[in-house]
Amino acid sequence: MGQGSENLAHIFHKVETQQCLAKDEYKASIKELRLNLLQLQAQARELSIPVVILIVGLDGSGRGDALNLMAEFLDPRHINTHNLWSPTDEELQRPLFWRYWRAMPATGEIGVFFNGWYRDPFYENALGSMGDEDFERKMRSISRFEKMLVDDGALVLKFWFHLTAKAQRERIRTYRKNPGSGFIVTREEIERVEHYSQLVLTAARGITVTNTTEAPWFLIDSYDRRFRDVQFLQNLAEGFRQAIEKKQNAPVHTTSTAPLSHWENTASILDAVDLERSVEGNGYAKQLKAQQKRLGTAAWKALEQGISSIIIFEGWDAAGKGGTIRRMVQAMDARLYKVISVAAPTDEEKKHHYLWRFWRHVPRAGFVTIYDRSWYGRVLVERVEELAQFHEWNRAYQEINDFEYQLVRHGIVVVKFWLHISHEEQLQRFRHRQETPWKQHKITEEDWRNRDKWDQYKRAVDDMVAKTSTTLAPWHIIPANSKRSARVEVIRTVSDALEVAIRK
Amino acid sequence: MGQGSENLAHIFHKVETQQCLAKDEYKASIKELRLNLLQLQAQARELSIPVVILIVGLDGSGRGDALNLMAEFLDPRHINTHNLWSPTDEELQRPLFWRYWRAMPATGEIGVFFNGWYRDPFYENALGSMGDEDFERKMRSISRFEKMLVDDGALVLKFWFHLTAKAQRERIRTYRKNPGSGFIVTREEIERVEHYSQLVLTAARGITVTNTTEAPWFLIDSYDRRFRDVQFLQNLAEGFRQAIEKKQNAPVHTTSTAPLSHWENTASILDAVDLERSVEGNGYAKQLKAQQKRLGTAAWKALEQGISSIIIFEGWDAAGKGGTIRRMVQAMDARLYKVISVAAPTDEEKKHHYLWRFWRHVPRAGFVTIYDRSWYGRVLVERVEELAQFHEWNRAYQEINDFEYQLVRHGIVVVKFWLHISHEEQLQRFRHRQETPWKQHKITEEDWRNRDKWDQYKRAVDDMVAKTSTTLAPWHIIPANSKRSARVEVIRTVSDALEVAIRK
Repeated sequence: MGQGSENLAHIFHKVETQQCLAKDEYKASIKELRLNLLQLQAQARELSIPVVILIVGLDGSGRGDALNLMAEFLDPRHINTHNLWSPTDEELQRPLFWRYWRAMPATGEIGVFFNGWYRDPFYENALGSMGDEDFERKMRSISRFEKMLVDDGALVLKFWFHLTAKAQRERIRTYRKNPGSGFIVTREEIERVEHYSQLVLTAARGITVTNTTEAPWFLIDSYDRRFRDVQFLQNLAEGFRQAIEKKQNAPVHTTSTAPLSHWENTASILDAVDLERSVEGNGYAKQLKAQQKRLGTAAWKALEQGISSIIIFEGWDAAGKGGTIRRMVQAMDARLYKVISVAAPTDEEKKHHYLWRFWRHVPRAGFVTIYDRSWYGRVLVERVEELAQFHEWNRAYQEINDFEYQLVRHGIVVVKFWLHISHEEQLQRFRHRQETPWKQHKITEEDWRNRDKWDQYKRAVDDMVAKTSTTLAPWHIIPANSKRSARVEVIRTVSDALEVAIRK
Repeated sequence: MGQGSENLAHIFHKVETQQCLAKDEYKASIKELRLNLLQLQAQARELSIPVVILIVGLDGSGRGDALNLMAEFLDPRHINTHNLWSPTDEELQRPLFWRYWRAMPATGEIGVFFNGWYRDPFYENALGSMGDEDFERKMRSISRFEKMLVDDGALVLKFWFHLTAKAQRERIRTYRKNPGSGFIVTREEIERVEHYSQLVLTAARGITVTNTTEAPWFLIDSYDRRFRDVQFLQNLAEGFRQAIEKKQNAPVHTTSTAPLSHWENTASILDAVDLERSVEGNGYAKQLKAQQKRLGTAAWKALEQGISSIIIFEGWDAAGKGGTIRRMVQAMDARLYKVISVAAPTDEEKKHHYLWRFWRHVPRAGFVTIYDRSWYGRVLVERVEELAQFHEWNRAYQEINDFEYQLVRHGIVVVKFWLHISHEEQLQRFRHRQETPWKQHKITEEDWRNRDKWDQYKRAVDDMVAKTSTTLAPWHIIPANSKRSARVEVIRTVSDALEVAIRK
């Protein structure tokens, strides 16, 4: 338990008043709230706000009943409740948050997460299986996750349904005596009552860390059923109202390149790349074969051991991404890999956070996913073409680092390539494409336009590498003026990474 | 084994020639095929043809190597190989074909299914765990499934890689001695060699039943590696070519209402509905409560027993679908149900068969999915508004019956409601909506347009009920001039259905 945390539980004092509400007063409030909520839901839907509601709290607090009341009041067609019981095997084979991402509401929809992403860490820390340091790290990472949703326009409201120890004991006793329809008090719940004070201290710490302006906590005094419901629905309505107001008054962001002007005279990391490297004649075929053989073997072994990998290809137009990917997959059994070519998002994808579509494709244990362009589009093309605003692409570095951290922590091998060619080499390749009949489709007006923005892209690449080359997922800048040398080096790098993971 | 099936295996004679191909000839053919295939893939992509390739055959036939060669030749960004190993628990909780539907390629993409949907029934029948009758039924249902894909514009090509018994034994022996990188001959495979003759007879029967013009089988003599690859790729190219030609020369279908003209003077099933039924004053509240209580209890029990249910609401505009659904979900814990309001398909959904979007949402074991409008839109609004062509909606009855059959066979409770009101009652409700400020948004120009087409809709409902009211999934036509009576009856019907399933 962290220092001074014994005193943290005082945050719950103001919801331990055991206040009650008379029936008449309840009925009047509820009637008004019902109408309000339905209207607020419709307004949020019109404004395309995705709403995330977390229902967390003590056993016996009746948070399930409160949830049912809310569900009854809102338009059921645009609300989806997720009770994430034990993870399925498809979920277990992916990073923890995959199950939350797949349940994330689209714009205009409401996603209710019963127990949210808090229950497990709360219990694990309270019962001692998760140390305090891990717990705090976990809470901070949850905070970043929630901030990311809010930054993207979501409304995140978190409710903690509280009871005093005495009230909880009584409540559980009553439930046991009068089991409602289907509602069962489990042995586990009864045992957990014994850990009331640990749990409440942990919750106090967790709530304190994660109670942010972006994703606030609402503490609900749950002693009296009527008082509980009214408080809950009032806070919910207030949360909706604030989000709607915020959205309506949102400042119009304009893209700004100012913060990066100091870069102009700075040397680029790309200038240091030795582009003269190449592989001589026969050496190429031999080296390529050798590396492909390594990769093919490693891919099968990775399957056996359940090690997934994600290989990302970014690089200049005509840098040879497609050809390199083809040489790479030649080495592997077709049942083991999947190539994802990142194009414009679909309309379902557009209704979610930009990382959602990449979470969708996180591979199951043992498989290889190859990205021909990737989530880095956010800080490359979307930045340069001003498709994302400054505050959007600027916060993406941290979001991407968090995402990759989760992948790597789950045991996924992440390898990132930037295929680098010189400005002159690109020109020659463009010309060659134009002159070769069956390559003409590979060169478009857009490629020439991108070429004109070479320096802006260069700056974006510098920022990207500087900000997202982490120990866990470093960038590999591959000199690619010689296609052959680039192919061999890429396949060697992937094999190295897989072999290291396999040996572990 | 069916009568005369002993002779069926002769279908394989022509691929037991053990023909070989010289290296030079192989190289020349392969080079040409490579170019052809890449072009054909691009053409199919331009024509938005989804391509389904099934790679099936005997162990040791090298079908995996052939698949890898194909994957190497085609554009890897638009091909996806599915080796459906043991089903995951998410798959086990849904009808068998859910796993194939979720892997189905979108238009312009290629989906390769290793072992397809044939391997399991072939082995089960050959090794005796699936009787001949079940096997034939299974094959016929597969044929209908494939026909459905093809009717929708897909190309379905099926390959059987064949070997003689002697050649298979030798091949497996060689593999065991020289295990390739990662390739392992399992004990299971060695044992299966003993069942060669049963398996080949079963395969012959299965292939004979499912070898249709729509989804043809290609038998590949796999004795010689080079001969095998060339045959395979040639047949593949030929399949592509024919599909492209067919698509380019496709007749322009025009919607025709002719086949149904004999209906004009026929009595409608809806005319026989007694619309005068109603529930008196206090009786309503009491009856509703009683039925809601039954439903709430049944929903928890269904969760315990892993029984899912799908409740479908269709009916006239203003028939009270929304209000009825709200009364229904009031009865259930919000964690147990999901309401899906069927709107226009998303662009991802448009790239698939119209049933794909419904397969996506098939609930996991124990949950309730409620559809506010459903797949019946195909034979109602899409028919009447001519959004689907005659041949499209006309074949949908059979497709829907097949779909629901799979749901029910998996143990899912399917309940279908048509909420029926009179033409006059609809007019009154429309007017009431127009006059009530907070109901005005519920009435649009489209509602009035639909109302003008009352008779056409009536005819469509008659056809729908006649053709899709099956023993397993009957239609319930609910008189709904009295909203109260309709609500009670709907909830009672659902409770009945759930209780019957729970008692089983």
